[in-house]
Amino acid sequence: MQRFSSQQLAAFTARAFEQVGISAHDAKRIAELMTRADVNGSEGHGIFRLPQYIRRIKGGAVNVKPNIRIEREAAGMALVNGDNGMGHLVMRFATEKAIEKAKTAGVAWVGAKWSNHAGPASLYASMPVEHNMIGLYLAVGNANHLPAWGGLDMLLSTNPIAIAMPGENEAPVILDMATTVAAYGKVKTKAQRGEMMPEGWMMDRTGKALTDPRRSNEGFLLPIGGYKGYGLALMFGLLAGTLNGAAMGRDVVDFNADDTTPTNTGHCIVAINIEAFQPVAEFKKSVDALVRDLRNSERLPGVEHIHIPGEGAHAARADRLKNGVPMPPSLMEALDKLASELAIMPLAK
Amino acid sequence: MQRFSSQQLAAFTARAFEQVGISAHDAKRIAELMTRADVNGSEGHGIFRLPQYIRRIKGGAVNVKPNIRIEREAAGMALVNGDNGMGHLVMRFATEKAIEKAKTAGVAWVGAKWSNHAGPASLYASMPVEHNMIGLYLAVGNANHLPAWGGLDMLLSTNPIAIAMPGENEAPVILDMATTVAAYGKVKTKAQRGEMMPEGWMMDRTGKALTDPRRSNEGFLLPIGGYKGYGLALMFGLLAGTLNGAAMGRDVVDFNADDTTPTNTGHCIVAINIEAFQPVAEFKKSVDALVRDLRNSERLPGVEHIHIPGEGAHAARADRLKNGVPMPPSLMEALDKLASELAIMPLAK
Repeated sequence: MQRFSSQQLAAFTARAFEQVGISAHDAKRIAELMTRADVNGSEGHGIFRLPQYIRRIKGGAVNVKPNIRIEREAAGMALVNGDNGMGHLVMRFATEKAIEKAKTAGVAWVGAKWSNHAGPASLYASMPVEHNMIGLYLAVGNANHLPAWGGLDMLLSTNPIAIAMPGENEAPVILDMATTVAAYGKVKTKAQRGEMMPEGWMMDRTGKALTDPRRSNEGFLLPIGGYKGYGLALMFGLLAGTLNGAAMGRDVVDFNADDTTPTNTGHCIVAINIEAFQPVAEFKKSVDALVRDLRNSERLPGVEHIHIPGEGAHAARADRLKNGVPMPPSLMEALDKLASELAIMPLAK
Repeated sequence: MQRFSSQQLAAFTARAFEQVGISAHDAKRIAELMTRADVNGSEGHGIFRLPQYIRRIKGGAVNVKPNIRIEREAAGMALVNGDNGMGHLVMRFATEKAIEKAKTAGVAWVGAKWSNHAGPASLYASMPVEHNMIGLYLAVGNANHLPAWGGLDMLLSTNPIAIAMPGENEAPVILDMATTVAAYGKVKTKAQRGEMMPEGWMMDRTGKALTDPRRSNEGFLLPIGGYKGYGLALMFGLLAGTLNGAAMGRDVVDFNADDTTPTNTGHCIVAINIEAFQPVAEFKKSVDALVRDLRNSERLPGVEHIHIPGEGAHAARADRLKNGVPMPPSLMEALDKLASELAIMPLAK
């Protein structure tokens, strides 16, 4: 598989956004975050999304010159109005605000409305970590593939949670997960590869396991832990969507199928300043000790390695910063097609 | 089954605590919260725990005259040192502090260390709701029954999350869940009743499903969604335990097996003032609309009713406030034995 440096990916991505009317400054910022997603191994949320983002901008669904602003504010919170700008810009703004406020408030919760898809949850949860803070991020997904537990109407999305915190010598511990057993992107990947899905990912409308990903539109995703995952998806959506005045439930726009309607995506980011609770060095030592206890646990027969959340991203990052980001041929083709449509220099050059 | 009014339960519980050295004022407060758990249908976390609490107090594991205090504080946070007092007192103090701070800060995060088991998570998450706030509670469980995903060393607990928010005409939406498929209390109940557990609750040390609850000490609980639930239990434990300087991982004391060692239990409560984000009435209307959309969803074949998190507790409360709390004979016996040991008037009188 051909590999490209993060600089190449970022430059191409920025060219594409500039060509559809986003300022050079903003295009560079979005490109940097999208590239970071690819470098961290979140392939489904990086440059893979570029054709879709561009299509929605061209369709008028996204504001290329947003006035992203604080609408409400108190010592421990803020509410950001993203003015329908690219989610990456909105959430970078919101996260920087949360970090700034947490420096004095100790903990700050910043919600966002009138945002858009912003890439992987871990991007924003990880930002406070560089400031010796813990990040906690929630979002309303941009397509409803999940019904209430026992129901058939798809009123909920895979509403993700990400939590990130620093270790001392260990890599940051970063959890980034959908509240469904599989994210919808994984279903699409299985379909592309002609593979079947394991039982437990999806169910059809009669209650039977759905394992053929080509039939995914005949069923729905299953939440983790049955009614528990349904409860988490619901509550995370209320916190990230409803509380901020953003879309939730029947108001969620399927951004895969629709290129013209603003999504009013809601997210929230919480920055927790470790220093407010205890000396940072002590906290990091405790995280390291726990990580090592877990990693060195006795293992179930057949298990080679105990996984610590975030270590996959850490390993991908180390590899990709050195060797570049691998590019599947189908994605390469889609990006070449995009370059041609936009009349910009393709990625390969 | 014999039923008792909440007043009877609370009076008996308070008598027991007073008899082991807790002040009348504190005993009444603990009893009120424990009774609330029973009224809300959280039987495993109400008066059922009284013999164990008393045993640990008598064993010297819990401080009957704690100096519960704020150790650190900023606009959006506080850290409470519970001085090894009963968890109910510590978490009531912490939650009141969070509510008070959220009135001005918009959002306030209060952590607690040197606390103890405090009953059901929903007790504290629900307190902000009466103030038109959302409550979010996390805790480190008081016994490790969960290994890392793929591991055998039980380094994690069923670390629960509870989130509660108000509706307008609908009952508050309240999620209260362990991060394991089943809480350990459910395993014990199955054993008492001579029933088998469904597959998926527990696994033995060879990786096989464990379904006989009498063999529960030969295996461990399973997290919801496999590695996802493991990730949630880990992160919630880091937030509620490690960040506060409370026990986590190998430092967690099994409060079922040990009557003499302080647990240094950690919890945290976040109070989110809805008014800081939008008019409270609008938010409540949106919650109601979503609840109704979910409840009125088309249903899977064989499903009679779509469950909304919290409605079970709401129904239990309505029944029990009117008809009293049902008391299983085995629990009645345990409480009579306790009354006799403590030389206090039994519950029945």
